[in-house]
Parts: sequence; C-alpha cells; structure tokens
Amino acid sequence: MIGPGVSIVAAGMVRFGERFDAGYEDLAVGAWRAALASGGDRLDGERVEAAWLSTALGGLIRREAVTGASLADPLRFYPRPVTRIENACAGGSDAVRNAAFAVASGVYDVVLVLGVEKMRDVPTRASLIAQRGTMSHLWWHPRGATSPYLFAQHATVMMDEGLITREDMALVSVKNHDHGALNPNAFMRKPVTVEQVLASAPVCEPLSVLDCCPTTDGAAAVVLCRSDLAQQFTDAPVELVATGLATDTMYSHTKPVFGRQPAPTRAAADAYRMAGIDPGDVDVAELHDCFTVAELLAYEDLGFCERGKAAAWLRAGNAAIGGALPCNPSGGLLSKGHPIGATGVAQLCEIFWQLRGEAADRQVDGARIGLTHNVGGNGQVCCVNIARRS
Amino acid sequence: MIGPGVSIVAAGMVRFGERFDAGYEDLAVGAWRAALASGGDRLDGERVEAAWLSTALGGLIRREAVTGASLADPLRFYPRPVTRIENACAGGSDAVRNAAFAVASGVYDVVLVLGVEKMRDVPTRASLIAQRGTMSHLWWHPRGATSPYLFAQHATVMMDEGLITREDMALVSVKNHDHGALNPNAFMRKPVTVEQVLASAPVCEPLSVLDCCPTTDGAAAVVLCRSDLAQQFTDAPVELVATGLATDTMYSHTKPVFGRQPAPTRAAADAYRMAGIDPGDVDVAELHDCFTVAELLAYEDLGFCERGKAAAWLRAGNAAIGGALPCNPSGGLLSKGHPIGATGVAQLCEIFWQLRGEAADRQVDGARIGLTHNVGGNGQVCCVNIARRS
Repeated sequence: MIGPGVSIVAAGMVRFGERFDAGYEDLAVGAWRAALASGGDRLDGERVEAAWLSTALGGLIRREAVTGASLADPLRFYPRPVTRIENACAGGSDAVRNAAFAVASGVYDVVLVLGVEKMRDVPTRASLIAQRGTMSHLWWHPRGATSPYLFAQHATVMMDEGLITREDMALVSVKNHDHGALNPNAFMRKPVTVEQVLASAPVCEPLSVLDCCPTTDGAAAVVLCRSDLAQQFTDAPVELVATGLATDTMYSHTKPVFGRQPAPTRAAADAYRMAGIDPGDVDVAELHDCFTVAELLAYEDLGFCERGKAAAWLRAGNAAIGGALPCNPSGGLLSKGHPIGATGVAQLCEIFWQLRGEAADRQVDGARIGLTHNVGGNGQVCCVNIARRS
Repeated sequence: MIGPGVSIVAAGMVRFGERFDAGYEDLAVGAWRAALASGGDRLDGERVEAAWLSTALGGLIRREAVTGASLADPLRFYPRPVTRIENACAGGSDAVRNAAFAVASGVYDVVLVLGVEKMRDVPTRASLIAQRGTMSHLWWHPRGATSPYLFAQHATVMMDEGLITREDMALVSVKNHDHGALNPNAFMRKPVTVEQVLASAPVCEPLSVLDCCPTTDGAAAVVLCRSDLAQQFTDAPVELVATGLATDTMYSHTKPVFGRQPAPTRAAADAYRMAGIDPGDVDVAELHDCFTVAELLAYEDLGFCERGKAAAWLRAGNAAIGGALPCNPSGGLLSKGHPIGATGVAQLCEIFWQLRGEAADRQVDGARIGLTHNVGGNGQVCCVNIARRS
C-alpha cells in the first residue's frame, strides 16, 4: 500500500503503430479522451487536479525542452500542474510512481498519468534505438552501442553459458505475437513462427528483426485517485499497491555481470515488500520485452522462476495465456509496440483491464494481482508497479 | 505543510560559472559532496534513500536519453531510485516538489534533490537560449523565437503601456549584480551601473546583454526529510511548507495578454494557500530573473506589489538587501547564473542559508519565510516553493 492508498479508476490508450494520421498532440489527446470515456459519466475531467507526463524523445529527435506544458496545451489542462518525467524506457512507470506519491501525500485527490511518444515520422538514424550509444557525450561510452547491441550482450553470455538457445528467444517472440494478435491496440497483430523469427533479418547477433520491438507511435493514460474516493468514479477500482524503482551503473564495461540485471531485481524486491506479496502471488505480468532475451531475463530477475531456468519455464507454457503466470497478454513491446514514454503507462492499462476482467479475447482468468516491469537503457533503471483488484 | 511535514536539512552547490574544469558528473558530485558536508557528521549519505534529478539539456545538446542513472552512476548511488524531471527552466523546483510528495507519502524518510547542467562547452548555436524556437518541431511555432525574444515581448508591451521604462529594467540588473558580488558562488561578481547596462550589446530590443542571464555551468543539491526526523540531521532544519506548480499555453500567439504571466500567479496562489500565508509574510525571495523584465513581472505576479506598480516598488528599494522584501540576494540568474536544471534547487539552497542566518555578507536580517519562483519557457510552467525557519 502506498501511503493511505492509491487506486486506478480509469485507463485508456490509442492504437499503437505507425500513426501518420496523428501527431504528438493528437496521440496525447486520444489517450486522455479514452481514459475519460472509460470512466463514463462518473469521471469528469475537471476533477483531475494534476498530471504527470512521460515522454522521452522530444529532446532527442526534435531538440527541444519538452516541459509539462506540451501536455497541458493540447489537453487545455492549464493552469493545472504537469510534471514531465524522463527515465529512458522506464519513464512511464516512474511517472505512475511519482503521481502515486503525490496522491498518497494528501496534496491531490485525482491525478492523470499520460505517456506519449511520436517516433515514426523521423529518419531512422535519429531514433533512440539506432543512436543510443553514438549520441552519448561521454568519451568512454562505446561508439555504436545501439540498444540491440546492449541486449545482445546478455544473449551471447547466456547462450555461451548454455542457459538459453536461439530458439528459446524465438519462442518469446512467437508467444507475444500470438497474444498481440488478440489485442486491437497492438501494432504487429500477425502471429509469427519460430522459423520466421530465425529467418528474419539479422540486427545484432544473435538478435534478428523479430527479436526486436518495433519503433512505435502511441500514447496511454491512467487516472489515479485516493483509494477512499475510488468508488465515486467506478464500481471496480484497482488498487496500486506498490511501486519500486532502482538504478544500476550505466555502462557495459562497468557492469560486473551479464545474464542478469540488478536494477529489476531490486525494484521488484522493493515492490514485493511494499505489496506484502511473493513473486508466486502474481497472476499476470506485463514485462519489458524490448528484445526477446529481455523477457527471459525478466522471468529470473523478477523471481518468476529460478536462476538459469527461464527457458525451461517458458517452454513449460507458464508465460502464455492459460499458463501459470501469463506474461505480456497485451502482446508486449514486441507485438503491441514500444512508444518509449508511453510503454509503462500502457502496461498498467493492460493490468487494469486484466484485473477488471475487461481484456476480452486475451483475458487471463481470475487475475487478482498484476505486475508491470519497465526497464530503461541497458538495465540502468527499472520500475516495477503492482496492482490488485479491490 | 506538505502532508505530515517535510524539512530541508542540508544544502550545497558548486560555484556557478564557466567551468571548463568540471564535466556534468564532476558538477553533480560536487553539489552532492557540498550538501553532505553541510550536514557534518550527522548526515550520512547512506541514509539518503532516493533521489530526484533535474537536468534539461542532455537531450538538447548531447542528444541522449538522460535518465536517473546519469546521477546514480557518478554518485555511486545505485541501486537506489533516481527520477529525472524536466520542466524547462522550472525543473529544479518541480524536482523539489516531487521529492517532497514522496517524503510526505511516507515511502521515504530522507531524499536528495540535485540539479545539474553543463552548458558552456557546446557551440552557442546549440544552447537552449539561442534555439528555443528554432528547435521546436511544431510547425506553427514562430521560427527564431529565442528566449530573449519571448521575454522582450513582455517588455515592449509594458513599456508601450507606460508601466516600465528601459531604466527600470536596468535597475534590476544593477541590484542583482550588486547582490551577486557578495556571493562567492556567483558567476558574474562585478557590479554594473545603469549606464553600463544601457550601453551593453543589444540582444533583442529592448533587452541588452546585461539584461540577460549568462549561459552557465553549475549544480546544486538539497536533502529533504520527514520533519519529525529533521533534528537527527541538524539543529536548524528549515521546513518546506508549500509547493505550487502551474502551467499555461505554450505559444506567444495563443497567449491572451502580455505584461503578466498566469502560471506564476496561479502557482503562487496555490503555494500561499498551502503555507497559510499572504505575499506580505514573505521575508526573502529568489526570483526567476532570466531577463530583467522577468523580475519586474514577478513582483506583480507574486503579489509583492500591485499590478502596474513593479517599477515604483523596485525604485523604492524594497527588493534590495535591507529593503522590505529582498529579492535575489544570491544575485539571481542575472549574476549568479542560470544552469537550467540546477536553478530551482540553487534558489532553495539560498533560501535555506538565508533562513538559517548563514548567508554572510548578503544575509537578509531576521528572515523567517522564504520563497522561490522558478519559471519555465515563456511562462508556460512555473513552480513556487515556500520554506519557513522551524
């Protein structure tokens, strides 16, 4: 429980994808309207007192200070306060975390968290994916260290140690594309086979295109409020029971080990403690599968299975819808897409729908406790949030 | 009072200026060490559980996702959580605000807020000041709308309405350079005369170089904790009694009026209400004098004087050390400097020292209540924080 209690009372997102029909502002407004609509007549936008915006790429692609006003303006939300948070790919979940603290402090009753990213209308060379390393100002940062490279390091180490195979990674892609095919908000809705993943274009050995999440436009929003007020807005609030954020050293050459990530493990441990649960209590999880290997890492970092057992745990069907702990029923980053700042918020939207039994064809039966796992950079930051059906 | 109470127990900054001797990481570490040192033996860095980082230019100048790990790494702060906040020039104060909410929520007892910016080792054309407008992706944003241009609009309107003169603006620069000459951490420590301000190089009519704050390297840090624990760390804690953030429309052509700024007025009203005070109760203020005219705007927006009376209020000596409500005893942005992300945190350092009677030659006698006013963009966001001597 966070302070005196924080609940999610509304969630909404726009369809993720190549949205040449919508700019940054259109995507933000779309997610805001979808979240408000989910609350029906009982949720008036005027009741929302403050907002947290997660967006990462304004500075990178458009070279601008982004500011909270980039949300306040299209939503006509001013003069209300908007904080912009950036924590690489984990910004969405950290925005949820900070908004929850503000509600728990007693300062606000009802707040908005909105993540938005416009990624597809810029040259590929300007994308975060392509330029992660080359854009760094730090002289010691390896030049050319793109995001696929940073995660391929984990894959090659784990393969070298005999912990995972190339096919194990492909199976993550197959599972998540199967799930995403059931999600009308997903970007890549076509199932893929192991053979197709293995035959897809190489990106960074051993990762191929179908091991990598797509560059995506999108936006997602949740409305949080004091738990004691939640019934005003919905009959089925979902309590945000815990949040954990952790950091790690930023650089590959200063990391003591590959094949595990300390920040997610620490963030999860903090969140489990705050929620008063064990990993085995989680019924459904949205994981940061920016690359297939990242989901295998997550199973172990989060304690879903023992160290070294990720591949066997996956192959036993645990992570599929219908399994013991379905992971990424939304399709995850691999299929639903990964609009950087929006991802953590969209993960929480999916958990909100799953815990309320509103996930239609991809519903996880009887889910009561859900978790989001949102990793930034090469594991340099991770935020884990946990929600429970009231 | 913010929740059950939040206090400032330590503050530190590095000397602002052209710091070719120090990189981003050095500046951050310098502020962290200075803050810890200010607490003496009673403040152990290991007690600090989480951090909020304010920095704006990483994305702009170096084209990178910055993330909280850019603070965690040089401070060896990992695995502890670090949130990065960006809200243009108001990010430092908004980082204080979010950190205070986290403490007030009961989740953390002791947290760090650190602002840092490295601005001087890039070409001038890459600076935020030069490219505010030209970097925007928004097709309707006026090209070439630099920061001086955005504030010159207020100045020309106020001059046209007969509310201020060119000399009134120069007097702000004279006052703040007089104050900054007393501050060993200030960038521009040389007093200037009205004649020198008027004769300095024109930047954007009617603003000249000495009406504009300098592009600055710097970093500043404060440590916040639960008020009921504050005596553990210092005999003279300062309570952070209120915080207010507000937004406004982003664009010059959508602003209904010049010569006043709605966001600062709203942020201040919220902060005064939370603190249970009136503007007249403020004993000392650090104002966002990015340009001379901005300080004149602030007097009125904050209610220090009536609308239209800023120039007369300044000329009566109220804003100078020794006056009724000394403004910018530190030298302000004009003299101390304006390292974007660090500014709001450095303003609160100055208030902390003033309220503890530690401001040496620039001490405001008997100050009990202090205010910081931190504006982002062309008034599109503003954060006002208020502190009180315990």
